[in-house]
Amino acid sequence: MKCKRCKATAAVALPSHHAGFCEECYDLFFTRQVEKGIRRQKLLTFEDRILVALSGGKDSLALMLVLSKLGYNVTGLHIDLSIPNSSEAARGVVERFCEKHGFKLIVKEMAKEGLAIPDVKARLNRPICSACGKIKRYFFNKTALDEGYTVLATGHNLDDEIARLFSNTLRWDLAYLSDQGPGLPAEGGFARKIKPLYRLSEFETANYSFLQGIEYHYAPCPYSQGASFTQYKKLWADLEEQMPGRKLDFYLGFLERGKEVFAKHEETHGDELQPCEKCGYPTSAEVCGVCRIREAVSQD
Amino acid sequence: MKCKRCKATAAVALPSHHAGFCEECYDLFFTRQVEKGIRRQKLLTFEDRILVALSGGKDSLALMLVLSKLGYNVTGLHIDLSIPNSSEAARGVVERFCEKHGFKLIVKEMAKEGLAIPDVKARLNRPICSACGKIKRYFFNKTALDEGYTVLATGHNLDDEIARLFSNTLRWDLAYLSDQGPGLPAEGGFARKIKPLYRLSEFETANYSFLQGIEYHYAPCPYSQGASFTQYKKLWADLEEQMPGRKLDFYLGFLERGKEVFAKHEETHGDELQPCEKCGYPTSAEVCGVCRIREAVSQD
Repeated sequence: MKCKRCKATAAVALPSHHAGFCEECYDLFFTRQVEKGIRRQKLLTFEDRILVALSGGKDSLALMLVLSKLGYNVTGLHIDLSIPNSSEAARGVVERFCEKHGFKLIVKEMAKEGLAIPDVKARLNRPICSACGKIKRYFFNKTALDEGYTVLATGHNLDDEIARLFSNTLRWDLAYLSDQGPGLPAEGGFARKIKPLYRLSEFETANYSFLQGIEYHYAPCPYSQGASFTQYKKLWADLEEQMPGRKLDFYLGFLERGKEVFAKHEETHGDELQPCEKCGYPTSAEVCGVCRIREAVSQD
Repeated sequence: MKCKRCKATAAVALPSHHAGFCEECYDLFFTRQVEKGIRRQKLLTFEDRILVALSGGKDSLALMLVLSKLGYNVTGLHIDLSIPNSSEAARGVVERFCEKHGFKLIVKEMAKEGLAIPDVKARLNRPICSACGKIKRYFFNKTALDEGYTVLATGHNLDDEIARLFSNTLRWDLAYLSDQGPGLPAEGGFARKIKPLYRLSEFETANYSFLQGIEYHYAPCPYSQGASFTQYKKLWADLEEQMPGRKLDFYLGFLERGKEVFAKHEETHGDELQPCEKCGYPTSAEVCGVCRIREAVSQD
């Protein structure tokens, strides 16, 4: 197979784009897809101060690198979950990455917040994943607002977004469907959030990271027993193989036609949020989920 | 495995209902699912004069039989498509079935209407399936209205409905999503339409037909090159195997929550229909699709 652009030998084959690219042109392809995604959904301006959530995985590091290369003003945010072995390794990857590229990095240590994940896990009667996600989103939001960033960016790729959209659709969860998408405006105590890699598959991001020589953390979390979205991702991989381009069609079709219908419905039917009595974070209860977790952990 | 109801040896296993049934109790299960479907979606009353579309396949014959056993007033309608070998066999099955059970049967012969499917196929530059479907729906509707039936019933089962819903959702086709469901009210020149088997899978209907000793026509149409929904059905079969009950959840969730959102959107955004200039059938063009096909066939 030859590179679609320069006719050199292709290094990456992309059936969903009916194309293959050499290393150099792949970089260009990836970068242009990110630019296109930002432009189509009006995600960013060059005036934005962007806080990029860096887990240490390939997606978030690729996002940070590509945004910086495009000339955006980026700062990294790493949440140190204090999980033995795992968190230390992830943090090391993020710190080395930011040092290498001269990126500013903020690290929030959950142990210092009374929210070390092993302690949370010990107090919880249900799987840790949803509480851990809640804690991370809480500190993403809080850090962005407290430290004056105009937007929070996460490295969710097309496969992540498809699995979530598919799961929300299977359950016809109108509230979740109404605000899924690559851009979520700032609203009632929430920072603006964006997912600039939404047009790129996991395979495409992995290739970019590999070709850019990014060292990343890939050990699965020791607490996760195979994420719930895994089987949806497999199903969609099969569908994509049979009908290349189907994933992007489903997601972009949702953004173009589906989403507004759900959003309109939720305008009149959605839950009202109010500030948490303890910390001010938006919640539908009196005290937010993270304050309740913190309370439970402290009652030892 | 034992019958969930009477503890005899089970003849049919139904993982999605966490149950197995013996022959007799399976009949009861199937019948009750049909009754439940009719009641939940208010599909029928005992005053209705029901025209049941009978292709000769297991689903439509099972539907006719179960509705009749439940005491509903049913008449069969068979569309003879005039496809060599195939149509003759299907019509024979339907005629013998209706004779055996003493059901009234109306047969519409497409050859007499200038719409024999081989002639249509010869004039068409695209696959025949969509034109054939259009012609069948046209005569279902016309016969129901012309001959004073209050409702038209078709044998679509849960798998048919899931494949259609999934296809409409993948494309985010808001117009199709707004009026998919087991009951479609009479409206602007269209007869009321119902699908009373919407809660029952293809496997469940096949079992019912088998246990009731229904002789049915199962040769695939010689013109169909593997229906487009086949791969969606396979995908859903895998999903159902991994998570029993997922199909019914997806469909019922759509009916309970999703559908109204799309219907509300279409109220303000949908296409206006008007009567066809030639035959009066509702259409968004001046002349309806079937009249255009008929014209093309007659220009020989």
